[in-house]
Amino acid sequence: MRVYLAGPDVFLPDPQSRALLLKQICARHGVTGVSPLDAPDHEPPEWAALPLALRIARRNEAHIASSQALIANLTPFRGPSADAGTVFELGFMRALGRPVFGWTNTRALFLERTLAAYPARADRAGALRDADDMMLEDFGMHENLMIDGAIIAAGGRLIARDIAPEARWRDLSAFEECVEAAARSLFG
Amino acid sequence: MRVYLAGPDVFLPDPQSRALLLKQICARHGVTGVSPLDAPDHEPPEWAALPLALRIARRNEAHIASSQALIANLTPFRGPSADAGTVFELGFMRALGRPVFGWTNTRALFLERTLAAYPARADRAGALRDADDMMLEDFGMHENLMIDGAIIAAGGRLIARDIAPEARWRDLSAFEECVEAAARSLFG
Repeated sequence: MRVYLAGPDVFLPDPQSRALLLKQICARHGVTGVSPLDAPDHEPPEWAALPLALRIARRNEAHIASSQALIANLTPFRGPSADAGTVFELGFMRALGRPVFGWTNTRALFLERTLAAYPARADRAGALRDADDMMLEDFGMHENLMIDGAIIAAGGRLIARDIAPEARWRDLSAFEECVEAAARSLFG
Repeated sequence: MRVYLAGPDVFLPDPQSRALLLKQICARHGVTGVSPLDAPDHEPPEWAALPLALRIARRNEAHIASSQALIANLTPFRGPSADAGTVFELGFMRALGRPVFGWTNTRALFLERTLAAYPARADRAGALRDADDMMLEDFGMHENLMIDGAIIAAGGRLIARDIAPEARWRDLSAFEECVEAAARSLFG
């Protein structure tokens, strides 16, 4: 059972060690973690001519397509939302109709996180609007509704834990709980 | 030819008027713009029991699945990246193997936008790292490489124009150029 591990973990100082750690946790629960850093088994020869960034994008898409499920690190990344690449990959797997799961190292909801960074005021109808007059989503979700919606519709789980900011890119307890839930669901 | 119009435009003060405007521009170029706000033709009766946010998520997925292409408003939204829901939808359509296009009202690249909001320093290997020690992507792309990569791999176009900040959620010249490019490509 191959599970693609989406997340900004690839931007950490030692991404290979991190990938190994994530894979070891997956193995403990009987699933094969697939990292964006994994070398592809084989790839179309014409990809060799692509600029590196475009080749990585193709490889990641191929990794996702060859996995049976996806687990996304949705810990907020440089702003109220998760890393854009991670969110793209979640949408990609959802469209393939396979289970998607998420974990995040904060229990603060999307609205609360957005308000902390972008001051807002209520308009006449009571909707919260930022300085650009753009409405803030107020649905009690962890992320933009497409993300929570996809995970729920796919029968997945979104595990949120409150981890101190300084340990937010290190602590893997929410990840392990998510892997456990995914394994239960995939083998159940 | 149905083209799904992904974007945070739904958060504008008058989203219905905005949707109408986008659709009129599409119609001028011979394509049918599909808005996230469109009422579905029919939907599974069990969706009626879903909380509104989850129902919207299902509807948007259905709108995308019933469209032949997608155009995403990638103008940075509350941070260096595009709106998370928009990025999710781009990934969703890419996985369906259909053409995806993007437009953005700034020509500043992803690295430049990230640096403007998140101070960084070069590590020993020369890679730029933020205060959390997370690497900044430096590939000369408009967005995270999954996004530029998907648009290029799908044969789409990413149109970027420099629009003054105060007109960034109003100006539709980059959108119209994108619709024109999409129409040429879809009918060509």
